[in-house]
Amino acid sequence: MNKYFNALHAPIGAHSSFTLGCLGKNGGLGLELGGPADDNVYIGVETRQGNAYEALPFYAGAEDESRRYDHTKKTDAAQNFFTSFAQSEIKRDFALGTDCWSAGDLTFTIYSLAEGVPEPDQADAATLKKVLCPAVMAELTIDNTQCSQARRAFFGYANGRSGDAFNVIEDTDGMRGFARGQATGIFTDSKSATPAMGFGIGNVLKEKHAFNYNFHLGGTALMLCQVPAGKKVTFRFAICFYRGGIVTTGMPCSYYYQRYYKSIGDVAKEALASFAWLKSRAKAANRLLERKQLSDDQRWMMAHAIRSYYGSTQLLDHKKKPVWIVNEGEYRMMNTFDLTVDQLFFEMKMNPWAVRNELDLFTSRYSYTDMLHFRDGQNIHPGGLSFTHDMGVRNHFTKPGFSSYELAGLTGCFSHMTHEQLVNWLLCAAVYAKGSDDQPWLTRNLPVFKKCLQSMLNRDNPIAADRNGVMSLDSSRTLEGAEITTYDSLDESLGQARNNVYIAVKGWAAYLAMETIFAENGMPKDAEVARDQARRAATTIAGHLDSAGFIPAIMGEKCDSRIIPAIEGLVFPWVLGQKKQLADAGPYGALITALKTHFKTVLTKGTCLYDDGGWKLSSTADNSWLSKIYLCQFVARKILGFDSPETRKHADAAHRNWLLKDENLRFAWSDQMSSGVAKGSKYYPRGVTSILWLEE
Amino acid sequence: MNKYFNALHAPIGAHSSFTLGCLGKNGGLGLELGGPADDNVYIGVETRQGNAYEALPFYAGAEDESRRYDHTKKTDAAQNFFTSFAQSEIKRDFALGTDCWSAGDLTFTIYSLAEGVPEPDQADAATLKKVLCPAVMAELTIDNTQCSQARRAFFGYANGRSGDAFNVIEDTDGMRGFARGQATGIFTDSKSATPAMGFGIGNVLKEKHAFNYNFHLGGTALMLCQVPAGKKVTFRFAICFYRGGIVTTGMPCSYYYQRYYKSIGDVAKEALASFAWLKSRAKAANRLLERKQLSDDQRWMMAHAIRSYYGSTQLLDHKKKPVWIVNEGEYRMMNTFDLTVDQLFFEMKMNPWAVRNELDLFTSRYSYTDMLHFRDGQNIHPGGLSFTHDMGVRNHFTKPGFSSYELAGLTGCFSHMTHEQLVNWLLCAAVYAKGSDDQPWLTRNLPVFKKCLQSMLNRDNPIAADRNGVMSLDSSRTLEGAEITTYDSLDESLGQARNNVYIAVKGWAAYLAMETIFAENGMPKDAEVARDQARRAATTIAGHLDSAGFIPAIMGEKCDSRIIPAIEGLVFPWVLGQKKQLADAGPYGALITALKTHFKTVLTKGTCLYDDGGWKLSSTADNSWLSKIYLCQFVARKILGFDSPETRKHADAAHRNWLLKDENLRFAWSDQMSSGVAKGSKYYPRGVTSILWLEE
Repeated sequence: MNKYFNALHAPIGAHSSFTLGCLGKNGGLGLELGGPADDNVYIGVETRQGNAYEALPFYAGAEDESRRYDHTKKTDAAQNFFTSFAQSEIKRDFALGTDCWSAGDLTFTIYSLAEGVPEPDQADAATLKKVLCPAVMAELTIDNTQCSQARRAFFGYANGRSGDAFNVIEDTDGMRGFARGQATGIFTDSKSATPAMGFGIGNVLKEKHAFNYNFHLGGTALMLCQVPAGKKVTFRFAICFYRGGIVTTGMPCSYYYQRYYKSIGDVAKEALASFAWLKSRAKAANRLLERKQLSDDQRWMMAHAIRSYYGSTQLLDHKKKPVWIVNEGEYRMMNTFDLTVDQLFFEMKMNPWAVRNELDLFTSRYSYTDMLHFRDGQNIHPGGLSFTHDMGVRNHFTKPGFSSYELAGLTGCFSHMTHEQLVNWLLCAAVYAKGSDDQPWLTRNLPVFKKCLQSMLNRDNPIAADRNGVMSLDSSRTLEGAEITTYDSLDESLGQARNNVYIAVKGWAAYLAMETIFAENGMPKDAEVARDQARRAATTIAGHLDSAGFIPAIMGEKCDSRIIPAIEGLVFPWVLGQKKQLADAGPYGALITALKTHFKTVLTKGTCLYDDGGWKLSSTADNSWLSKIYLCQFVARKILGFDSPETRKHADAAHRNWLLKDENLRFAWSDQMSSGVAKGSKYYPRGVTSILWLEE
Repeated sequence: MNKYFNALHAPIGAHSSFTLGCLGKNGGLGLELGGPADDNVYIGVETRQGNAYEALPFYAGAEDESRRYDHTKKTDAAQNFFTSFAQSEIKRDFALGTDCWSAGDLTFTIYSLAEGVPEPDQADAATLKKVLCPAVMAELTIDNTQCSQARRAFFGYANGRSGDAFNVIEDTDGMRGFARGQATGIFTDSKSATPAMGFGIGNVLKEKHAFNYNFHLGGTALMLCQVPAGKKVTFRFAICFYRGGIVTTGMPCSYYYQRYYKSIGDVAKEALASFAWLKSRAKAANRLLERKQLSDDQRWMMAHAIRSYYGSTQLLDHKKKPVWIVNEGEYRMMNTFDLTVDQLFFEMKMNPWAVRNELDLFTSRYSYTDMLHFRDGQNIHPGGLSFTHDMGVRNHFTKPGFSSYELAGLTGCFSHMTHEQLVNWLLCAAVYAKGSDDQPWLTRNLPVFKKCLQSMLNRDNPIAADRNGVMSLDSSRTLEGAEITTYDSLDESLGQARNNVYIAVKGWAAYLAMETIFAENGMPKDAEVARDQARRAATTIAGHLDSAGFIPAIMGEKCDSRIIPAIEGLVFPWVLGQKKQLADAGPYGALITALKTHFKTVLTKGTCLYDDGGWKLSSTADNSWLSKIYLCQFVARKILGFDSPETRKHADAAHRNWLLKDENLRFAWSDQMSSGVAKGSKYYPRGVTSILWLEE
C-alpha cells in the first residue's frame, strides 16, 4: 500500500487543514482552500554525524533526494546537506485522530479532533472554545539516546512571497512561533525551540547568527529545536489557522471561534494550554473506528473521508447565531443540499443541531416557489415549494432563493435540482425530527411539510387521478429545460431527474416519512395522501422491472441504463425505523423484491462492476461517486441482505486502491471517479456516508 | 513609442492599483500586491454588425487575436466572436490623473487622484473621506451615432478560481456591481448596466437568460452596458478596493479609510456619488505637469513615477492615529528609510505631515544604539543613535529597533545601513522642519538632533582630533561585517558605506543642516561642532580629487570607481536654502568646484554614460537607479549648472526608452536597471524624485 497519500488534519468548523502525506510540495497549511496549500513542509533532524539534515519528503524535489545519506560514500557535502529520509525507512500509522510518521530517530505525530460540536446556543463557552479551537496539534520526538552530540530538529514551512509576511509571535508565558500574517502559523511552548526565518531551508539551517533568524524577507520559517546529547525529547506544536473580521459576503458572518480568539496568537496560546486535552480527544476519536466489524480497508476509508469532511466545515457567527456550513471540497459551494442529505447520517451522529441549523436556513432563506412544465410543454402548471442547490460559494452567501450553481435553460450539468432538493429537505427533516426527538421544531415545521407534500404532488401530475408517485414535471426555473440530480456530470441514467428510478425511490421514502409524521401529528388526511402516493410510487417502480431483471434508470422513456442507486433511497425508511416497509412481506414487498432483483442483476462485471471489483454506479457511464457507493453498499448489505465479497471485501479493496492511485494522492479523499481516477469532486467532504458501516 | 506599458491607477493610501496598459493578461485590480494583478481585463463593445465583440487587448492571447475582424473575409464566426481591436487603431492619451484609451467607437478613460492628503488629525472628515476613498474612476463611452442597432459594451475582469467568490452587490439607490469577496470590484450607477458572471468571457456574452448572470462559480464578471441605436452613451464606473479589519501584524492597524467605509459597497456608493469631484481632481492633477519647462519625456516619466508611488502608499490607523506607510514596490518593505529620504521632496510638496509621521515612528520605534568597530577591529568604540532600514514588510511591523532587512555578519546586500539611515533621519528632519516651519516639533526633537550629532561624530573617529568628517567605523550590528548603502546590490563603489564619497557628501549636508538648526535654536556649541565637521568633511572630500579629475568612490581605500551620486547630497543644502554653501566662492567653494570637476570628468561615455545616453551611476557596475538619476540630473543642472543634452534631452530620451523596453512594460515604473532592463526594484515608488524638475 502506498503510504504517501495526502490526509487532512483539520480543526472543526475552521474551513482549514494542515494537509500532509503526498510526496513533494503538495501539502501545507491551508485556510479556506479547495485543495492542498502547496507549501514546502519541513520536518527533519540533523544526522547523528552532524552538519547535515534529513527530512520527511514533503517539499519540492523530495522524490529525487529521497535517499539515505550514504555515510561511507564520499559525496559532495553541499549536495547532501539536506536530503529526505529513504522512503523505505519511513513508516506511517494513519488513524482518524492521529497520523504518525517515523524515520530514523524522528517521530512526528499530528493530532486532530473528530467529534461532535456541542450546540453553540446551549453549550458552555469553555467547551466550545476548545472544540472549536482553529488548530491541530503535533509532536516531534527526537530519540537522541544513541548519539553523543547535541542535534537540531526542525518543523516549519515555506510559502510563496505574496500575501502577508511571515512574522514571529511570542508572549510572556513562553509561547512562541511564526505566522503568515494572521492566517496560518506554527507555535510551541518548548523552551528549546526558536523560530527562524530566511530565504530558504538551507539559508536558515546554515545561518550562524541567531540575530538573523529575524530576517523577514524570506518565505521559509522553521521552528529550530535543540536536542541534547543522549536525550529523547518531544517538542509540542500548535498548527494554527485564523481569519478575523467579517469573512463572508451576501450575509456577513465572522467565524464563530472569533468569540474566543482575537488573534492567531490567542489560538496558539489556548491550543498549547489545552494540548493534553486535545491530544486525548484525538486519541479518543481513533476509538470510533476501532470496531471489530470494520476491515482495514473500511477503517482506512472512513478515517480518510471523515478527515476530509472536517476540512470543509465552517462554523460561522451571524448576528450572534451559529451558522453551520459544509463547504463542497474543491468547489467550495456552501451547504450543497444534495451533499447535506448524504452527510446527514454523520451529522446526526455527531451534532444533530447542525442538521436543524442547515434545514432552517434552507427554509428561511434558500427556498422558492416555482411553476412546472411537462416535457416540451409550457410552464403553466402550479409548482410549489422547493429549495436551492446550495447557499453560495467561496464565502459568498447568494441572495435569498438562489443558489450559486443553478442555471436556466439547461438539461445537463448546472441545471436545477428542484425536485431532488425538495425530497432532500423532507428526508433530512424527517431524520432530524426522529433522531433528535425535537417535537417543538417538528410542530413548527408541519406547515412546511404540508407545503412540501403539495409541491411533491404537483410535480407528479396536476391531475390527481393521473399521479403515479413519480416526478413527471420539470421546474419553470429550468425554463424549457429539465431538472437534473446530484449526479450532475453523469449521463441521463443518473443525470435526469424526471422519471428517474433513483429519485423515485427517494421520493417514495419521502412519502413514507411524511405519512408517519402527519399521522403522528394529527394530520390524518395528509398522512393518507402521502401513503397513497407512496403506494403509487412503489407500484410504478416495481412495475418497471423488466424481463431482464432490472428497472431502467429512466422509467417509461427510452433509456435502459442500469444503475446501482435505484436502491439508495431505502436507507431512509431504515434510519426512520420503518422496518415493516422494508420487509419482503410488508406493504411494499413488491418494490423491495423488485429492487433486490434489480440489484442482483446489475451488480455484475460488464454492468455495474468494474473489472477490479469497484462499483460502477451506472452501466452506461464511467463516472462513479465513492460517497454514494459507500451508502449503497450499506443498503445492499444491511437492508437487502447482499453481504458478499462483491458488496464488501472485493469492493472495498478496489475503492481503497482507487484513492491510492498516483493521480489521486494529492487530493486526499475524492468522490467522483472515472475508472478509479478522480476527475471531479476532489478534496471532498461527502465520504462520511461510510459512517453507516458502524450500524452493521 | 510603445503605448502598451502598464501604468498604475491607484487610490491614495490604499496600497492598491488598477494596473493597465501592458498587452495580455498583465494587469487588473490589485490589492496589496508587489506587482500587477494578473487579471484578464475586458473592455469592449459589440461590433456595428452585431453578435461579435471587440476589446482592448488586455487579456490572455490578446497578441494573437489583436487584429480587426475582417468583415469581407469569410471566417469562422466563433473564431471572431471576440477579438481585440487592431493595435494600430488603438490610441492612448496618458497623463498624471487621466489615462484614456480609444479605438473604434469606444473610449475608456481612467481617473485617479494625485494630490496631497490633508493632515488626518486636523482635516475635516468629509474631505478625508473623498481623498482617501479607495477607488479609481472610469468612463466608458460608446459612440453609437453611426449605427442603427443597439449594441452592448462591457467592462469587467476575470480572476483565478481561488479566494473569495465574485458576488453581486447592489443598493436601493441603483448602485450595483460585483466584487471578489470584499477585496476588489467594479460598480456603476448607470441604469442600463447589468452585472453578469460566468465561466468565461464567451459564456457571459453569449448567455441568453439574464437569470444566469447570477452564476457564481465562474471567475469572470462583467458590467454589461446597453447602448441604444444612434446614441452616444457614457457609463461611469468606480473601481474599488477594500480590506477591512486589522490588516497588519506586529503593530495592529486597520486602513484609515475604514473610518468612513465599512464595506466595498460603501466605497462604491461614495465614489459614484463623488464622481464629478473625483474626475475634476484627476484632471486638476494633470495640470501639475503641464509646465512649459518640462519636455514630453520628462512629463511622461513623472506621471509614470508618481502613479507608481501612489500604488505603494498605505495610510493606516493605529490606536486612532494615522500611520503613513510607503511600501517598497515589488518588495513591499514598509517605509524603507533610504526611499523615504528620496521621496521626501514629493511628500513635502504634497503632505509634509506624512514626513513628520514617518520620522516620529522611526524615532519612537525604529531607532537603536550600537557600538562601532574599525575595519578588522572589534566593536569596542561607542556608537550612538541610528535608525532601521525599514519598519517591516508585507503588512508586518517588525519589532521595535529592528528592520525586516538588515542581517549581521555581512559586507554586501542585506547588511546594515546604520550610517546612511542616521544621515537620512537628519536630512529628512531638517527638510521637514524648514519646509513645514514646525517649530514645536523641531524644539521637541532637538535632543534627537543632538544625539544624532554625537552618533555622527563617533562614526567618524572616537578621537576628536582624528576626525575627517567622514564615516570611518562600522556598526556593531554588522558584527565583523561592514555597512552598506541604499545601493545595496551595486559593487563596492556605491555599496560600501565607509569612506564612500556619496555618503560623505550626504554627511556633509547633514552637518550643514545641523549647524543651522543648532545655531537657530540656542545651541551654539553644537552648531560649532557641526560646522567644524562640515569643514572637515569638505576638506577630506575635495582633497581626494585626483589628478585624473575625479574623486574615487571609496576615498582612501583601493577603489577608483567613479560615481555620479558623489553630487547627490548637494540637493539638501539647496532645499534648505543654504545657497551660500553651494557657491563656488562660498565657504565650501573647494568642495563645490571639486564636485563640478568630478561630475564633468565622469559624465562621459565609457565612464558614467551608456552608449544610448542613459546615465550609469558607477563606472564599474552595470546597475543604475532611475530615481537617483533623476535626482542627480536635478543637482547637475540646477545646482552645478551643467544643463546640456547629456544632462537633459539625450538622457531623458534614453531613460524613457528603458522603461519602454519589452521586459519592463509589465512592471510600470521600475528603478534598478542593468543596461536599461529592470532586474530589481520593479513596480517601484521612488521615481518621485523627479518632482524636483518642477523647481528648474
